[in-house]
Amino acid sequence: MPSDRRDTGGLYRLMLDYPLRHGKSVRPALCIAVCRATGGSLAAVLPTAAVLELYHNAFLIHDDVEDQSYLRRAETTLNRLHGVPTAMNVGDAMLALTMQPLLQNIERIGLGKALKILRTVARMARESAEGQMLELRWISTGAWNQVDADYVRLVHKKTGWYSFIAPAMLGAIIAGVADRGVEQIGQKFVTLGIAFQIQDDILNLVAEGGEYGKDVLGDLWEGKRTLILIHALRVARSRDRREAIRILRKPPPPTSASKKSDGPDAVAVIDGLVSSGAMAEHARATLLSAWKELGHCETEQTKTQAEIEFLRDLVKRCDSIAYARLAAQRYARRFRREIGKMLDLFPPSDHRDFIFDIADFTIHRQI
Amino acid sequence: MPSDRRDTGGLYRLMLDYPLRHGKSVRPALCIAVCRATGGSLAAVLPTAAVLELYHNAFLIHDDVEDQSYLRRAETTLNRLHGVPTAMNVGDAMLALTMQPLLQNIERIGLGKALKILRTVARMARESAEGQMLELRWISTGAWNQVDADYVRLVHKKTGWYSFIAPAMLGAIIAGVADRGVEQIGQKFVTLGIAFQIQDDILNLVAEGGEYGKDVLGDLWEGKRTLILIHALRVARSRDRREAIRILRKPPPPTSASKKSDGPDAVAVIDGLVSSGAMAEHARATLLSAWKELGHCETEQTKTQAEIEFLRDLVKRCDSIAYARLAAQRYARRFRREIGKMLDLFPPSDHRDFIFDIADFTIHRQI
Repeated sequence: MPSDRRDTGGLYRLMLDYPLRHGKSVRPALCIAVCRATGGSLAAVLPTAAVLELYHNAFLIHDDVEDQSYLRRAETTLNRLHGVPTAMNVGDAMLALTMQPLLQNIERIGLGKALKILRTVARMARESAEGQMLELRWISTGAWNQVDADYVRLVHKKTGWYSFIAPAMLGAIIAGVADRGVEQIGQKFVTLGIAFQIQDDILNLVAEGGEYGKDVLGDLWEGKRTLILIHALRVARSRDRREAIRILRKPPPPTSASKKSDGPDAVAVIDGLVSSGAMAEHARATLLSAWKELGHCETEQTKTQAEIEFLRDLVKRCDSIAYARLAAQRYARRFRREIGKMLDLFPPSDHRDFIFDIADFTIHRQI
Repeated sequence: MPSDRRDTGGLYRLMLDYPLRHGKSVRPALCIAVCRATGGSLAAVLPTAAVLELYHNAFLIHDDVEDQSYLRRAETTLNRLHGVPTAMNVGDAMLALTMQPLLQNIERIGLGKALKILRTVARMARESAEGQMLELRWISTGAWNQVDADYVRLVHKKTGWYSFIAPAMLGAIIAGVADRGVEQIGQKFVTLGIAFQIQDDILNLVAEGGEYGKDVLGDLWEGKRTLILIHALRVARSRDRREAIRILRKPPPPTSASKKSDGPDAVAVIDGLVSSGAMAEHARATLLSAWKELGHCETEQTKTQAEIEFLRDLVKRCDSIAYARLAAQRYARRFRREIGKMLDLFPPSDHRDFIFDIADFTIHRQI
C-alpha cells in the first residue's frame, strides 16, 4: 500500500505542539505593540510576529534536545515524547518554514520593508547562534572566570537579540520608522532583554515546579553562567568557591535522570548490588569503567543531587538572588526611562502602555 | 578578565570543519555546471553554489547527531568530537548564515533572480524537512510495508530536492532561463537524484571502510528503508521476511557502539562478570532493567551484530543489490536521455559534458 502522496510524517501536527502549549508569547506581543505604538497596523505586522514565535519555538525544541530537558511549558518535552531525531527535525522544519511568510511580506507590505525584515532576521539568527556557541564553549572548557559584563554580553547575543531587539526593530520597520530610528529602538530594548533573562535565571532557582513548567534547578545541573552564580563565586570564601567550581565543571548525568525527584540512580543500583553481596567489589569498577568508555553514563564524574544542593545553599548564603533582583530592577527602570523618551514622540496609545506593562511583567513574572 | 567582544566561541572554525574535509561537492558543481551550460557566468553563480554546500554540510551535521554516527568523510563526526549540543548549534548557525549571501544576490544579480532563488531555497528546505520526517515516522512506527514507489517519493523529497532539483533550478535561474524552463530542468533531475541515492544505499552495504568514510552498514543498524531492503522483503521466503522485520523494528544500540568493529559491548561486559562469578545471575536482570528504565541503554531490545549479519546475508541471497544496481542504471539512462534533449537547445560546452559525467559518476562512484 503506497503512502499518501501528501503524507509528511505528521510534521505539521508536531510543529504545532509547543506553540499550542501555554506560552507567554512575549516576542510577537512586543513586535505588535511596537508596530502599533509607532503607527503601524495589526494586519501588516501579524505574519512577521508569528514568524518570531515560530522561530522561538524552534529554538526551544533544539535547546531542550541540547539540555536533555524533561519539561517545557509544564508538559513533557518533544525530545522525551518523540526522541531526539524527530525533535531535531521538527525544529529544523520550523526554521525552514519561517522563510515563506517573510518572502510573502513583499506583496503584503512592499519590497523595501520586506527586505529590511529579511536582513534583520538574518542578523538575529546569526547573533543567537554566536551567543549559544559562546555559552557552549564556556561549558566545554570549564571556564568560570566570567564577570558581570561577560554575562551581559552573552545575554545580549543569545537571548536579547531574538527576544527583544529584533522583535522591536521588526515592529518599527513595518510601521515605517526610518532606519536610524529602527536602530535606536532596537538598542533601547537591550536592557529589557537583560532584565528578562535575570528574572528567568532567578525563577529557575526559586521555582517550586507546578506552574513554572521547566526543569527546576536545571541551570545548576547544566552549569549555566548566570549573574547569580557569577556573583556567588565572586563573594564566596575561597574554599567554597573552589568546591563550587569543582562541582560546576562536572557534567550533568547524561539522561538528566537525577533531575527527576524519584527514579533510580545508575550508580546507586550498582552500589546496592555490591552491598547486598550480589556483585563483587571489583566488578563495580569493571562495570563503571566499561559504561564510561561506552559513553552510556559518566557515573562518578557527573554532578550529584547533594552537590546541586551545595550550590543552591551557597547562592543563598551569598545573597546572590537579592543581588540579581536589584540588577534586574535597575535594567528595567533604565528601559522604561529610555523607551519612554522615545515613545513620547508618538501619540499616546494602549500599545505604548502595554510596552511599559511588559517591562513590569519582565521582573515580576513567576512563569 | 572579560572575554573578547567579538569572541563567538570558535563557531566559525567549527563551521569550516566538515566543508574542509574531502567531500564530493556534487551540489555546487551541478549548480555551476547548469548555470554555465545555459549561458550564465561563474561569478554570478558562485555565492549561491557555496550556499548549497553550506546547507548540505549543516544537514550532514544534524544527520550525524540524529543517527549518532561515528564517521563522516573518513574522520570523526562533529557530535563525537565536540558533543551533541555544539554539533546541533554549529548546524543551526550554518543554516542561519545561508541567508546573508542569498540577500546579497540582490546587488549581485538583480532583485528578480535573487527573489526566485530565495523562494526556491525556501521550497527546498521545506521538502527536505518533510522527507526527513516521513522517514523518521516510518522508523518510529515500525512500518515495513513500503513499495518501490514509496522509496522513490521519499528520495525525491529528502535528498532529490536539495541535492539535484534545487541546485539545477538555481543554476538555470541565475543564467536567466525563463520560469517554465527552470521548472522543466528541475524535473529532469529527479531521476538523477534517485540514481544517486540508490548507489549511496548500495555503497553502505558493500563498502569495506577506509575510503568510504561513513559508518559501514549504518543503514541496516538504523533500519533505513532502501530500495534494496524493500526488494529483499518482497522476494524473501515468509519466514525470513518475518525474522527480518522483527530485527529491523528493534532500535540500534543508543550509542551505536556496535557499529565499531572493536570496542566493548555493555551487555557483554555484564555477561562476562556473571560467567566469571563476579556477579550473581539475579543481579544481571536488576542491572539491565535499571539501565533500561534510566534510558542509558536498551540492552536486550536493541539490534545485535549477529542480526545485522542475518540482514546482510538475506539481501545477498535475494540478489537485491543487483536489482538496485539495475534500477540505478535505468534512472541514470533516463536522466541522460532527457537532459540531453533539453541541453541540445544550448551551444555545446564542457559544462554540458560535465553534467553527463556527473550522471556516470553517480552510478559508478565508490565514495
